[in-house]
Amino acid sequence: MSNAPEARARRPSGRRPIMLREIREEPERVATLIDRESAGLQKALQRLRESPPPLILAAGRGTSDNAATYGRYLFEHFAGIPVSGAALSLFTLYPAPMHLKGALAIGLSQSGESPDVASALQAARRAGAFTLAVTNSAGSSLAKVAEHTVLLHARKERSVAATKTYVAELVAMAMVSRALAGEPRQREIERLPEFVRSAIECEAEIERLAAYYRYAPRCLCLARGFNYATVRETALKLMETCYIGSTGMSAADFLHGPIAFVEEDTPVLTFAAKGPTYPFMLDLAKRLEQQGVDVLTFTNHREILAHSALGVHCPVRAQEALTPVPFATLGQLFACHLALIRGLDPDAPRRLKKVTRTL
Amino acid sequence: MSNAPEARARRPSGRRPIMLREIREEPERVATLIDRESAGLQKALQRLRESPPPLILAAGRGTSDNAATYGRYLFEHFAGIPVSGAALSLFTLYPAPMHLKGALAIGLSQSGESPDVASALQAARRAGAFTLAVTNSAGSSLAKVAEHTVLLHARKERSVAATKTYVAELVAMAMVSRALAGEPRQREIERLPEFVRSAIECEAEIERLAAYYRYAPRCLCLARGFNYATVRETALKLMETCYIGSTGMSAADFLHGPIAFVEEDTPVLTFAAKGPTYPFMLDLAKRLEQQGVDVLTFTNHREILAHSALGVHCPVRAQEALTPVPFATLGQLFACHLALIRGLDPDAPRRLKKVTRTL
Repeated sequence: MSNAPEARARRPSGRRPIMLREIREEPERVATLIDRESAGLQKALQRLRESPPPLILAAGRGTSDNAATYGRYLFEHFAGIPVSGAALSLFTLYPAPMHLKGALAIGLSQSGESPDVASALQAARRAGAFTLAVTNSAGSSLAKVAEHTVLLHARKERSVAATKTYVAELVAMAMVSRALAGEPRQREIERLPEFVRSAIECEAEIERLAAYYRYAPRCLCLARGFNYATVRETALKLMETCYIGSTGMSAADFLHGPIAFVEEDTPVLTFAAKGPTYPFMLDLAKRLEQQGVDVLTFTNHREILAHSALGVHCPVRAQEALTPVPFATLGQLFACHLALIRGLDPDAPRRLKKVTRTL
Repeated sequence: MSNAPEARARRPSGRRPIMLREIREEPERVATLIDRESAGLQKALQRLRESPPPLILAAGRGTSDNAATYGRYLFEHFAGIPVSGAALSLFTLYPAPMHLKGALAIGLSQSGESPDVASALQAARRAGAFTLAVTNSAGSSLAKVAEHTVLLHARKERSVAATKTYVAELVAMAMVSRALAGEPRQREIERLPEFVRSAIECEAEIERLAAYYRYAPRCLCLARGFNYATVRETALKLMETCYIGSTGMSAADFLHGPIAFVEEDTPVLTFAAKGPTYPFMLDLAKRLEQQGVDVLTFTNHREILAHSALGVHCPVRAQEALTPVPFATLGQLFACHLALIRGLDPDAPRRLKKVTRTL
């Protein structure tokens, strides 16, 4: 690795971006989270293992909503428990009782101070659910209303764009899924810090490729299955830090309409993990290649790169269900470096504060 | 109304667009749907009224997924029944048993030929769910796997961009919600054709305003609550027919990140219905006004228009929960006229076929 990327990775002010520093902390933070919270979580969910909840509710806003989406896939797939798509507004703006007796309600918020997430959890508790907070702040309102808290141990996140707390929230979802399954069905969770480290090692390559998108006016992010959360979050990071109009969508939904929309000036970012969704993503890559669409693929399976204009190979040998963790890091690195290349300060998105309060 | 709009509303070929004709049919199609299907649906769901399902699953792709999203809000709000956010890929790509005994599973597909929707419904039926198809085609694969079918009665939809079938799917969701509630808690359903007619009457005004967005490079569509489906669908229509990079999102999530992204060249479309979400939307309009953001508001409450650059007042006196039906029509008219103004053929989006088969 040359020194060049390091030299370029500076904010307009000349300082190194906090966002980049925080992304690089991720392997260590994730290791601490798994180390400190696993036992407590296993214990807290023991009762639910014996008598599985008929339903799980997972709620967050913005980045935390994307982590909740990842949780939905995990819980339905590994525990076979339906997850409610309950929107927060159903708790806060349309007061109506939900039948939640015996359910598990999870509220996710980095700061723990998003009032709607805390109210939703409180309402769920009153309706008979067991409540779990996932937050980076032990003394927060969210932690106070929950019966158990998974602390993210991400240390203070100073960058407005959430990165290490998002990755930690994903890992927390995987831990909850494992704790519900009762046995270590996902032993690979212990390997997540290593997987994230592999993603961090792709940084120089990602920075090099980000240059190609300096003037991209818009972009579409596509994946299927577990990595649906990844494309939603990557699109959000591109909007927040690069001001690029980005939509993250299911690659299947894409074929049902938005494929009409891609043209020469619309790069498509795809995340293709080895596993059940891979054949679909490979077919999509071939189809887009034929149409001359500019595709950048992030993958852990080199074969698909032959059909992409550009690509990043992140050699994690993880089951597909866990790839959203290292893939999130790839997307964050891409957004951060693209912001820098566009002359923007990723640490200070316009009009955004660190804590957003919505009801 | 002058003849001018009519004169301009032509495809590049000089012919009148089928999409526009099909939008204009909506009031009549919706009336037929309510008339023909209400009694059968009430009867089919009688058992579920007596012993309410612990869970509802609603699945579709593309436009039909947006109708399913509307259903999620209705069922959770009016029946208090949690709705699973189950992704179709959990049925088709990750075979794992879901606990669906006694549940209600709804599959939505205009053509009834989307194989993943049909397989999901079939899997749900095997897992013990009562299955309901919502489709425009009585002999379709989807109708065949379901125990009861709500036929949309939209007649053949020839435009690739779904319009009248989307509105019919929304109405079908409202009918299911009413049938589950057991009593005519939403008497207003009978008034839906009239509400849609009010939306159609806004066409000339919408066409006039669409001209302002001829060169818009991108756009953001915002609403809260029940109209979340409306902004997802309007953004999809803008992508399909106008090739404008559009994202539809919750106005609350918007404040948690993407507000950084709007700038001079990013128009924001908002849908503000009278009701519980209105105060939030009014505050948002004021905030965006202060920031000089170009906002186009569709509303049934004139007051908010004082804070929008442009606006359309559609005078429907509906409860908020039913406004997504006429508001969908407003969004369709906007997308269709904007496509025409941009010199595009809304009936023939690039690369799209009427029936998309994903697994």
